[in-house]
Amino acid sequence: MPAVPLSDIVSFVSGSYDGAADVMIEGVLPLSEADGRHISFLSNPKYAPQVASSHAAAILVAQDLPGDDPRWIRVANPYIAMARVVARFFAARPAPQGISPHASIAASTNLGADVAVGAFTSIGEGVVIGDGVVIYPNVTIEAGSVIGEKTIIYPQVSIYHGSRIGRRCIIHSGVVIGSDGYGFATDDAGVHHKIPQVGIVRIEDDVEIGAGTTIDRAALGATVIGEGTKIDNLVQIGHNVRIGKRCLLVAQVGIAGSTELGESVQVGGQSGFAGHLKIGDRARVYSKSAVFDDVPAGVWVRGIPAVNQREYVRQQRDRKK
Amino acid sequence: MPAVPLSDIVSFVSGSYDGAADVMIEGVLPLSEADGRHISFLSNPKYAPQVASSHAAAILVAQDLPGDDPRWIRVANPYIAMARVVARFFAARPAPQGISPHASIAASTNLGADVAVGAFTSIGEGVVIGDGVVIYPNVTIEAGSVIGEKTIIYPQVSIYHGSRIGRRCIIHSGVVIGSDGYGFATDDAGVHHKIPQVGIVRIEDDVEIGAGTTIDRAALGATVIGEGTKIDNLVQIGHNVRIGKRCLLVAQVGIAGSTELGESVQVGGQSGFAGHLKIGDRARVYSKSAVFDDVPAGVWVRGIPAVNQREYVRQQRDRKK
Amino acid sequence: MPAVPLSDIVSFVSGSYDGAADVMIEGVLPLSEADGRHISFLSNPKYAPQVASSHAAAILVAQDLPGDDPRWIRVANPYIAMARVVARFFAARPAPQGISPHASIAASTNLGADVAVGAFTSIGEGVVIGDGVVIYPNVTIEAGSVIGEKTIIYPQVSIYHGSRIGRRCIIHSGVVIGSDGYGFATDDAGVHHKIPQVGIVRIEDDVEIGAGTTIDRAALGATVIGEGTKIDNLVQIGHNVRIGKRCLLVAQVGIAGSTELGESVQVGGQSGFAGHLKIGDRARVYSKSAVFDDVPAGVWVRGIPAVNQREYVRQQRDRKK
Repeated sequence: MPAVPLSDIVSFVSGSYDGAADVMIEGVLPLSEADGRHISFLSNPKYAPQVASSHAAAILVAQDLPGDDPRWIRVANPYIAMARVVARFFAARPAPQGISPHASIAASTNLGADVAVGAFTSIGEGVVIGDGVVIYPNVTIEAGSVIGEKTIIYPQVSIYHGSRIGRRCIIHSGVVIGSDGYGFATDDAGVHHKIPQVGIVRIEDDVEIGAGTTIDRAALGATVIGEGTKIDNLVQIGHNVRIGKRCLLVAQVGIAGSTELGESVQVGGQSGFAGHLKIGDRARVYSKSAVFDDVPAGVWVRGIPAVNQREYVRQQRDRKK
Repeated sequence: MPAVPLSDIVSFVSGSYDGAADVMIEGVLPLSEADGRHISFLSNPKYAPQVASSHAAAILVAQDLPGDDPRWIRVANPYIAMARVVARFFAARPAPQGISPHASIAASTNLGADVAVGAFTSIGEGVVIGDGVVIYPNVTIEAGSVIGEKTIIYPQVSIYHGSRIGRRCIIHSGVVIGSDGYGFATDDAGVHHKIPQVGIVRIEDDVEIGAGTTIDRAALGATVIGEGTKIDNLVQIGHNVRIGKRCLLVAQVGIAGSTELGESVQVGGQSGFAGHLKIGDRARVYSKSAVFDDVPAGVWVRGIPAVNQREYVRQQRDRKK
Repeated sequence: MPAVPLSDIVSFVSGSYDGAADVMIEGVLPLSEADGRHISFLSNPKYAPQVASSHAAAILVAQDLPGDDPRWIRVANPYIAMARVVARFFAARPAPQGISPHASIAASTNLGADVAVGAFTSIGEGVVIGDGVVIYPNVTIEAGSVIGEKTIIYPQVSIYHGSRIGRRCIIHSGVVIGSDGYGFATDDAGVHHKIPQVGIVRIEDDVEIGAGTTIDRAALGATVIGEGTKIDNLVQIGHNVRIGKRCLLVAQVGIAGSTELGESVQVGGQSGFAGHLKIGDRARVYSKSAVFDDVPAGVWVRGIPAVNQREYVRQQRDRKK
């Protein structure tokens, strides 16, 4: 990563700064790890004691932070400023360039402009890849899938046939999209007969999916992940689940078949949902909970089985008596 | 998927139907999503209100459903009929054909008749692949493994050396079979020494394994998955676990080393078992439970720690007081 | 695996044995599975009744086991003796030899001596691979990563750019190292903006990582896994987590961002940690627990939310009343 004059950074964040500005900055690090080649930031007051002892060349701080230090760059929101500086100056990462001669791309694949495909990636018949899509090595995209423009697909991802992925999505390594839902009919002898899973997965724009997450295709129709939803690692999404826009699902969450989440629902890590539930907009589920009933819009729930926040607090109080 | 005359479908399900039969059907969809090109079905009474407003060309319904509609096809079991129609007419999916020139297959591999192997799949020395096996791209099968006839292996699967997979199994993307069990001996200095894991994994016929599931090889002997057992996504099976025939393990279940499940055991999502337990035939474990003790045959358990159903209900009653 | 004269095994473990020693041994198996070609062992007294009926050629037993049998080989610690015999005589496994002509290795990769790289493995620019490293097929190692000597990387592993892996590590199939942490800033309209994740993952020497485990790169700085720590399958490690030396993390554990574990911490399966916690040296977390607060050194905790062992026992007693 090329070094950047500190003056460029100060100017980019419209910061107020009186220290030396001709230093070359190589990156952003936490207060305790930065040295004279880095800038740092203070957003969580918990870390304020580390400011004085930090070796950072300069530190992004709030406008109203009491005290003074020539190294401080005062800005409206140090956390956002830090994120913008990183994104602007220090976030470049190596990526495949062009189409690898070691990729296997079906003749009927429709490749957009400026697409990159890594080595040992296999793309099936009739797949449509939008402009600016980047596909890393060792990915498999089966026939008939559609990948929207500027989406990034990291290594070892598997996308089953007929999947529809939106624009500007980020799909991390090991993700599986479109695997068969868990559907069986058990006969009188106890033998489980497979119900064919012939639906698809549809992922809308600006969705990020964490490493190792699995999203099953619908039995019929579609499993849907709404626009702007962000999913963490090792999450399991069952067949025919519908997740609304701008939800947050933290790691190791599981959602059983046909459950629907509204918009802006937030779910803590390791929580689970039974099937066929309706979870209203802006509902929140605390981590390590198990939701067995519908949750109305705006309600926060917690526990196993999950109850609303007030009832949970009452139960915990009793438990400690 | 080619369209099918509705008359062919009515005849295939031996349905009783008086409506127009010359319509061409392109697929099966839920009531709310179907239009004039689809048939639909009513099996869960919860969805009965959607029948009148559905735009489906025809609807599979029960023999005794009250009311009448020219679009109804009356059958004994609408759910089973739907599944059979899908399987017969609409379940074709793209799959690798023949042996890809981009696969790496050891000279000593024994390939059966009509085997398909996708691009960038690597098959080790002495592997035996049965007739009609389909292996998708980017799969690794290590030396000495045996894959039974008509088994399907989806992309990105990893099968360690010496694994034995039965006939007609379905193994979804990202599954790992035969990785080392978690076995260490800790010395007085607190250093953990690896216990070599030299057993195998044996998977019997007609097993389905969901995306991202991991099954460790035995330390000695074999980890066994019994015939007809169906495992969902992101399940963890420890070394030397033995699972009986026709069990159902829902997503994100974990089973610690050497635990044995009998036949037809059912385990809900996100539940876990400690090691060295014996779980009897037809036992059921509710989702989000933690089993720390043996469970007798036929007993249903629930909770953390899991207790029998009656005790669980009593505990919950107290909790709500 | 070539057979070994029993006399060699007896001599290797310095055992006391009076039976026939000219038998050829093909492996080690549990008492109930061994036949005349195998040796077995008795370490857990629970299995003592199986000794008499075992068909093993010889059995490793403790010095002071009451009774006598010509097949017994008396040793100080039968479990350790068994592990040593397996490691010495029966643990060879097939592995890639040399550099596969089907691998894709960037010109600027720095390969050590005696490195093996399997087919369809992709290694990016500037990667440094130490002496004796073994990389199986279908692995992706992105630019700028460093792999220490004698480390083993199984199939389908994905290592993002700039990762640092120590010496003698074992990384099982499907592991993802260095994927983006889950970091977003939500604006007033509820839209989640990605915080660039530009740190790295650093894994020290002698770490083993189980199949399907995911370890996110730091937002800034490093996510660290300490020397000699052993991680089981399907574990999730968030960004900026720091794990000390010689910890044990059992399957399906999840650790949220910036939490720090000291040395020799042990965590049971399916347990989780909230973010930004400090867990002291030698703390233990029982399986299926949820840790929401710091844990002092040496303290054992359990439950959801986790409390110390004494408080947990009290809560369970009340629950059973």
